[in-house]
Amino acid sequence: MPPALPNRNRQIHLAARPSGLPRESDFALVEAPMPDPGPDEVLVRGIYLSLDPYMRGRMNDRKSYVPPFKLGETMGAGGVGEVVRSNSPAFQPGDIVEGLMGWQDYAAMKAKGLRKVDPKLAPISTAVGVLGMPGLTAFFGLLDVARPKPGETVVVSGAAGAVGSIVGQIAKIHGNRVVGIAGGADKVRHCVEDLGYDACIDYKAEPDIRAALERTCPNGIDAYFDNVGGAITDAVILTINDFGRIALCGQISQYNLEKPEMAPRLFVPILFKQVRMQGFLVFSYADRYPEGAKKLAEWLKAGKIKYRETITDGLENAPKAFIGMLKGANTGKQLVRLAAEN
Amino acid sequence: MPPALPNRNRQIHLAARPSGLPRESDFALVEAPMPDPGPDEVLVRGIYLSLDPYMRGRMNDRKSYVPPFKLGETMGAGGVGEVVRSNSPAFQPGDIVEGLMGWQDYAAMKAKGLRKVDPKLAPISTAVGVLGMPGLTAFFGLLDVARPKPGETVVVSGAAGAVGSIVGQIAKIHGNRVVGIAGGADKVRHCVEDLGYDACIDYKAEPDIRAALERTCPNGIDAYFDNVGGAITDAVILTINDFGRIALCGQISQYNLEKPEMAPRLFVPILFKQVRMQGFLVFSYADRYPEGAKKLAEWLKAGKIKYRETITDGLENAPKAFIGMLKGANTGKQLVRLAAEN
Repeated sequence: MPPALPNRNRQIHLAARPSGLPRESDFALVEAPMPDPGPDEVLVRGIYLSLDPYMRGRMNDRKSYVPPFKLGETMGAGGVGEVVRSNSPAFQPGDIVEGLMGWQDYAAMKAKGLRKVDPKLAPISTAVGVLGMPGLTAFFGLLDVARPKPGETVVVSGAAGAVGSIVGQIAKIHGNRVVGIAGGADKVRHCVEDLGYDACIDYKAEPDIRAALERTCPNGIDAYFDNVGGAITDAVILTINDFGRIALCGQISQYNLEKPEMAPRLFVPILFKQVRMQGFLVFSYADRYPEGAKKLAEWLKAGKIKYRETITDGLENAPKAFIGMLKGANTGKQLVRLAAEN
Repeated sequence: MPPALPNRNRQIHLAARPSGLPRESDFALVEAPMPDPGPDEVLVRGIYLSLDPYMRGRMNDRKSYVPPFKLGETMGAGGVGEVVRSNSPAFQPGDIVEGLMGWQDYAAMKAKGLRKVDPKLAPISTAVGVLGMPGLTAFFGLLDVARPKPGETVVVSGAAGAVGSIVGQIAKIHGNRVVGIAGGADKVRHCVEDLGYDACIDYKAEPDIRAALERTCPNGIDAYFDNVGGAITDAVILTINDFGRIALCGQISQYNLEKPEMAPRLFVPILFKQVRMQGFLVFSYADRYPEGAKKLAEWLKAGKIKYRETITDGLENAPKAFIGMLKGANTGKQLVRLAAEN
């Protein structure tokens, strides 16, 4: 018997466009009527809200690959939840689903925007982690964009993050030497001891990233999966081998900047080393998601991919968790638990 | 009957490593003994010496894709000349050949380093131009690296240069809208009136390159062939369409800098627009040269590719011509005529 529905819903709205690192005052916790699902819609009780770095970009009023969040409206986000009412033959109350539910406790969602999650396959939070966008981003970005050959050296920045931690493990499965870059001794230890990285550089403790890359990559760098950008990426470009490939997945060091940071131009080494650098968004691989999801599920089931989650409880704490993630406070996937799993 | 050989050869040596734009005092005109070809070597009388921007990089004592020129030694360069003595069954006196002859009037060359040039096919200077490295660079860089689809918009920087002028014309043959970027009204007129560019931007006269690109590329930019780098390339990156492709061929604006110039980081737009940027060197296409050379010769013969040469007479004027080229004084291929064709 599902718990009775409350009368009111809670949402986090964008209250102000942040300047630099967002502050809690840029968000507002708002009470709203409980949504009423229309035809072919279902009402979902959120369980896990996914927090992702790309959301910072959407807080700016700037043209990008997705429209900006609107002031005074609910922040967008993926999430995992339970169907509590259904006006669609495709879903029954009790079904676990994944979709773009937003920063709120309950969401009325079109049935076609939801994906059913099998709670027997893996913990349901993985639907927004290893078995969701972060996993697929890692899979296609590494294997289709960076394309390391077995035996080559792969460097991953944001190595302990939701995407990076999966990139590193897929690269190990793929037969690569894998070197991570992460911030802090805990993350570095996690990468090497839990995730199987061959080495991991602590960029917060390392005075010279380039020297550290040369030390940990005796055969140079062949492929680089970039989640962070900035000076770390500069150091990789100066170190990467001829015909190196760079998959640009994230630039978290840049998202809080009001205007582009000044940095040395590095197109001459990119040219002379015949490097290929390619930006990608996982959405471009939508028609190949089943292929990636199948492999990720196999690896997860076989224990070849491990994952860690940083879980913050309560919608009201989502802004704080988001700001922390932008500062690198999380290890692995950053989630907000909106409610108990059942 | 060939003219009698002089007793002495003249060479241009690297006298000092330049700081910034080279000065004439960085070069020295030196008399040397007439070289004596050994077994399987031929003696070549240089006719056309090829001057190319990449040589500036080799004047620095810096690790790159080719070793630096050595102080006190002859500057390296491609050239076209006439065989005057041959110790190889592959060449006869009177043959016209192309090879890495260096900045000198005569060169003793290994036969296997020379390519025979057919003077009936086209003017022999094209062996270091349209039918040589610049032509092949344009061909593979455009069609294999930038890969525009017919109907797409291609932008070419250094549009009136030895490589750029061929890129623009191949793109027209390929069915693209082609917009050049060049310095000065003469070059702009040459690009549009002689070479068939749909539009050409004069970067020296244009206060806002980005606005000029938006004006001349109503459907945006799909592919960019970059010979210059710097602020021009920044403007293209900020304008380029989603899934745009950038072929990095040259960065002439950067070669005279003592250390990398500071510039705004633009990896966020490269990421969000899913741009592919790729550095390339024509040497990587060596096994496909015959394919490119065949097409270029066809197009040249059919009048579909036109070319212009900037010819400076006399080895002693090579340094001045080289410095001029780095400042953009040339239109089309910069050559030094060492001697009359016969």
